[in-house]
Amino acid sequence: MEAGIHINASCGGSGTCGKCKIKIVGGSADSPMHDRLSPAEYEEGFRLACLTSIRGNLDVEIPLESQVDKSALSLKGDREQGSYLLSPKDIYQLVQGWDVDPTVFKRYVELDPPTIADNVSDLTRLISAINRQHGMNGISTDFRVIRKFSRILREADWKVTVTLVLTKKGYKLINVEAGDNRQQNYSIVIDIGTTTIFGQLLNLNECKVVACPDGLCDGAKLFALAEASDYNAQISFGEDVITRIVYAQKPGGLKKMQETVVGTINGIIDELLKMSGIKRSLISHMVVAGNTTMTQLFLGIDPKYIREAPYVPTAHFIPPVRAVHLGIHIGEHVHVYTFPMVASYVGGDIVAGVLGSGIFQRESLTLYMDIGTNGEIVLGNKDWLASVSCSAGPAFEGAGIKFGMRATRGAIEEVSINPRTYEPMILTIGRVKPIGICGSGLIDAVAELMETGIIDQNGKFRLDIAADRVSKGTDGYEYILARKEETQIKDDIALTEIDISNLIRTKAAIYAGCKVLLDSVGLSFRDLEQVIIAGGFGRHLDLEKAIFIGLLPDLEIGKFIFVGNGSLLGARLLSFSQALLKEAERISLMMTNLELSNHAGFMNEFMAAMFLPHTDTGAFPGVQERLRLKRGSLL
Amino acid sequence: MEAGIHINASCGGSGTCGKCKIKIVGGSADSPMHDRLSPAEYEEGFRLACLTSIRGNLDVEIPLESQVDKSALSLKGDREQGSYLLSPKDIYQLVQGWDVDPTVFKRYVELDPPTIADNVSDLTRLISAINRQHGMNGISTDFRVIRKFSRILREADWKVTVTLVLTKKGYKLINVEAGDNRQQNYSIVIDIGTTTIFGQLLNLNECKVVACPDGLCDGAKLFALAEASDYNAQISFGEDVITRIVYAQKPGGLKKMQETVVGTINGIIDELLKMSGIKRSLISHMVVAGNTTMTQLFLGIDPKYIREAPYVPTAHFIPPVRAVHLGIHIGEHVHVYTFPMVASYVGGDIVAGVLGSGIFQRESLTLYMDIGTNGEIVLGNKDWLASVSCSAGPAFEGAGIKFGMRATRGAIEEVSINPRTYEPMILTIGRVKPIGICGSGLIDAVAELMETGIIDQNGKFRLDIAADRVSKGTDGYEYILARKEETQIKDDIALTEIDISNLIRTKAAIYAGCKVLLDSVGLSFRDLEQVIIAGGFGRHLDLEKAIFIGLLPDLEIGKFIFVGNGSLLGARLLSFSQALLKEAERISLMMTNLELSNHAGFMNEFMAAMFLPHTDTGAFPGVQERLRLKRGSLL
Repeated sequence: MEAGIHINASCGGSGTCGKCKIKIVGGSADSPMHDRLSPAEYEEGFRLACLTSIRGNLDVEIPLESQVDKSALSLKGDREQGSYLLSPKDIYQLVQGWDVDPTVFKRYVELDPPTIADNVSDLTRLISAINRQHGMNGISTDFRVIRKFSRILREADWKVTVTLVLTKKGYKLINVEAGDNRQQNYSIVIDIGTTTIFGQLLNLNECKVVACPDGLCDGAKLFALAEASDYNAQISFGEDVITRIVYAQKPGGLKKMQETVVGTINGIIDELLKMSGIKRSLISHMVVAGNTTMTQLFLGIDPKYIREAPYVPTAHFIPPVRAVHLGIHIGEHVHVYTFPMVASYVGGDIVAGVLGSGIFQRESLTLYMDIGTNGEIVLGNKDWLASVSCSAGPAFEGAGIKFGMRATRGAIEEVSINPRTYEPMILTIGRVKPIGICGSGLIDAVAELMETGIIDQNGKFRLDIAADRVSKGTDGYEYILARKEETQIKDDIALTEIDISNLIRTKAAIYAGCKVLLDSVGLSFRDLEQVIIAGGFGRHLDLEKAIFIGLLPDLEIGKFIFVGNGSLLGARLLSFSQALLKEAERISLMMTNLELSNHAGFMNEFMAAMFLPHTDTGAFPGVQERLRLKRGSLL
Repeated sequence: MEAGIHINASCGGSGTCGKCKIKIVGGSADSPMHDRLSPAEYEEGFRLACLTSIRGNLDVEIPLESQVDKSALSLKGDREQGSYLLSPKDIYQLVQGWDVDPTVFKRYVELDPPTIADNVSDLTRLISAINRQHGMNGISTDFRVIRKFSRILREADWKVTVTLVLTKKGYKLINVEAGDNRQQNYSIVIDIGTTTIFGQLLNLNECKVVACPDGLCDGAKLFALAEASDYNAQISFGEDVITRIVYAQKPGGLKKMQETVVGTINGIIDELLKMSGIKRSLISHMVVAGNTTMTQLFLGIDPKYIREAPYVPTAHFIPPVRAVHLGIHIGEHVHVYTFPMVASYVGGDIVAGVLGSGIFQRESLTLYMDIGTNGEIVLGNKDWLASVSCSAGPAFEGAGIKFGMRATRGAIEEVSINPRTYEPMILTIGRVKPIGICGSGLIDAVAELMETGIIDQNGKFRLDIAADRVSKGTDGYEYILARKEETQIKDDIALTEIDISNLIRTKAAIYAGCKVLLDSVGLSFRDLEQVIIAGGFGRHLDLEKAIFIGLLPDLEIGKFIFVGNGSLLGARLLSFSQALLKEAERISLMMTNLELSNHAGFMNEFMAAMFLPHTDTGAFPGVQERLRLKRGSLL
């Protein structure tokens, strides 16, 4: 980590997950044998990085499966994807009745130079000119503006562009630039995920993501959107929020966590500025959304009490903070707006998603699911909103799955199994030899194993089926998705019974969360008029297979909408419209969070969902029908 | 300066004033001969510090007259002084109708601990408790509080003391302390003078300056007030605001100036805390008043345009700034309130003085004079206020006077001259052998010289009078106040014709300023119902002699009130009463400043006042009468 290399570490370095395998090729280090290493691997020099003490200079090889590869993180998938995904234009239309009226805006002002007869202070002169020329009253001023603007006024011959922000308490003057600079007003929006951080650069005047020149094609200019992403560098300290909170309790841990996430964000900002060619000083605003733990760590607020019952976050609303105070490399006038939060496990990313997907405006009953490292679910409409959070473990991100990995290059993302030969056909991200399997591949694989009857509805292998690919490995029975010679890791990539059981537990938690949420208001899945699916997870998901395994409810396909990164969607809208600031706060205030840790019904629902697709077959009529047909056709 | 030694430097190191005389007793340095040094002095090793280049280690002796001695700066004189000075109690009564209701206050709150059924954020819990228990709404929160208070709440078992500040935009929560800490609420008020900085530590609950135990006397405890002062360390860069502004234009000069004044303030705060035994963390508020240049330098705002026509300050109002951002060693929640300013040469110190002396509330016409390094004058009542600033040069602080010095130990502060023998009787501050003469001594001396007829009403020596003490020195005719063998500097201390002429210019400028101000509203000195004199200057002043030389108007003595440090007086009141915040702003807004640099009548009035007491003898009937009687008695 000190050398800037980030290695997978699901368990946060506690020596249990075995994901941080490295190979020592030179130099000496103390590192014990471990269950997760075979004697042959140990012999070859493989070690677990987290258990290794360095004794001197060391040459280390980082195997593919331990690498954190960001090449597959691009947001572009959002738009290449199939029919359930909305176009950017359609996405903005989820929310009605807002005008382009950014919270942070620029105005051009011309001042009369002072004379002996009229020598009021520069600030009074400027404020009254803004007042007269733009009809704005009650403007307050940031102290940093006062420190520098007298010289700018004179150098610019009393013609300047002012940047103002609308706060709860009126307008605030945050910057003064020489000349007419109105056309250059940009904002950066950031989604801080536990695993991944996404950023976009917005043109606040044009109300869109900045388009960057991206070469030529047949004489026509090509454009790419100014968007960038990277793994949250905190993943080196642990895969999930709990390991991060634990790390933050160590001496200096909170500071380290804060600096680490800001480091990733600074890298993303650098990339956005580089690709767009826009000067750093022209960024006027920054909007950040993240789950509660990520938000608190980003702000340097100890997340300790998020983890301890009764799970209390420090604050629902964070006043705008100057970005430079957090260590962000950006103009010192820029304030960070942080999306308000609902509860310890329902954060600003969810409020942003609810804002961006327009649920808070609609009459119709909508279920909003954000499935990432955690699963957060919101139910409601314009009159009420309720939420739950299911901490079922990040199986979809690869944790708890033997060959699990994130949705990056080399991850198996699609699986189909021939119902007669039981041989698999796999597709990987980047169409390279496989390294492991990601969330969507996992869902595909389990759905196919079930549909072909290789596993039963409990997720256990049916040994009466003569599938060559099924064998007994070190972790019990498993299905080999790719044989050693077909993989990059020179080892079989298989799905074990334990993996399948972990997946079932995750999908059961999410389904049970939705069920309990509906029950709590006396409604059922059939009452839903819309299901909005957000999160990187949705990008590669096969909707029918997700229903097939019982992760999503068995509703007509037309009711599902994928919005991609809901958190960024909301952050963009907020940058464009000051009217939505109030809406974001209203959403966080009106949302009632159901604590599942305290909920009697949840465990029952969870147990009932520990079946493929569900013990209540009546809840999945379409799946039952399909299984019946399939089996019929095989007979 | 780098060694922390501050030497007099009226001219700011430009090699003209000759005040920075030092004696080199060992080591080598390059330093030229200079007009201000006699050949004998040069021979003995005397040099001007500002012209000396150091070539290696150096042993330097700093003669008394070059030293900056703070021992005589104590504020206590304010209360020991005679009849015109108001007692502290009376001083507070200058302003009517205010309640003790500090801008920054503490409240004790007990919270219900969170449960699973009630797990709103810590901040929401705290704010609603304040709301319920103290009836305060619309409280906003400082981000630093959010960063730290979750832990404090739990460690304090949900019983805490909150510190709130009333801003223009409502209440703001700035600190949370464990337990009931209401009784410990303090404020620091600072008057930043060009020459001297004064500070006091206030108990905000008791509405008074903190009293510190100061020994025993006959078994009874003695108390001293928590007040401290020091020379503004910027004096090493020049005596007046102009030399400071010039220095601030050099590369790094502004930063140096800002750090220098903050260094002095930090020293004063250290002293206040040490003498009172009060912990730094218990200071909740800070109020600063100073002239416009001092205020801008303190805040790190370039004062460049104050000096250039049309003399525009950067801002009249400064939003509260966090003290730590300015480099002040104080709790990070403390904000500095800076008194609003009127113009480039009528600053927050004057607004504070007008606030503290209650002019803004009175029906009666009042003249307020603050005579320090500059002279600022305000005229008005509750309905209107007008001001002028006379930059006549700081003769009262010793500049432009051959043996002039500030009012510190060894300064001649009282002079009387025997009308028959023409021999002087002098008194020095600290009753030690004299080093030089300060402002009040100067006024005394000139009044006595005039009364005894040694000088005429033009300030020229009457050579027809056989006074042994009058002789021709290097600077023309002079009157020897103390002979070589009676002084600490082993040289005659004399008053030259040039000195007298400088004093006349200074007093003429101030008198003319008052006259022009009155003329501008069609009033005359006779219309004045009250003259309030503020500034350190007033502490040693003989009122009758000041009238005698024509510095003050010839009005009945009962109309004059000395308020001591008016700036501190206003700063104290502002700390005690939030209602006065609005009054301070109102004062700065309602005050009309008359620019003398642009004023046709001023030069005429100035020339007319270049006489002792004045060319218009009718304006000084009392003085004329006294001169007549005196001369009669001598016949």
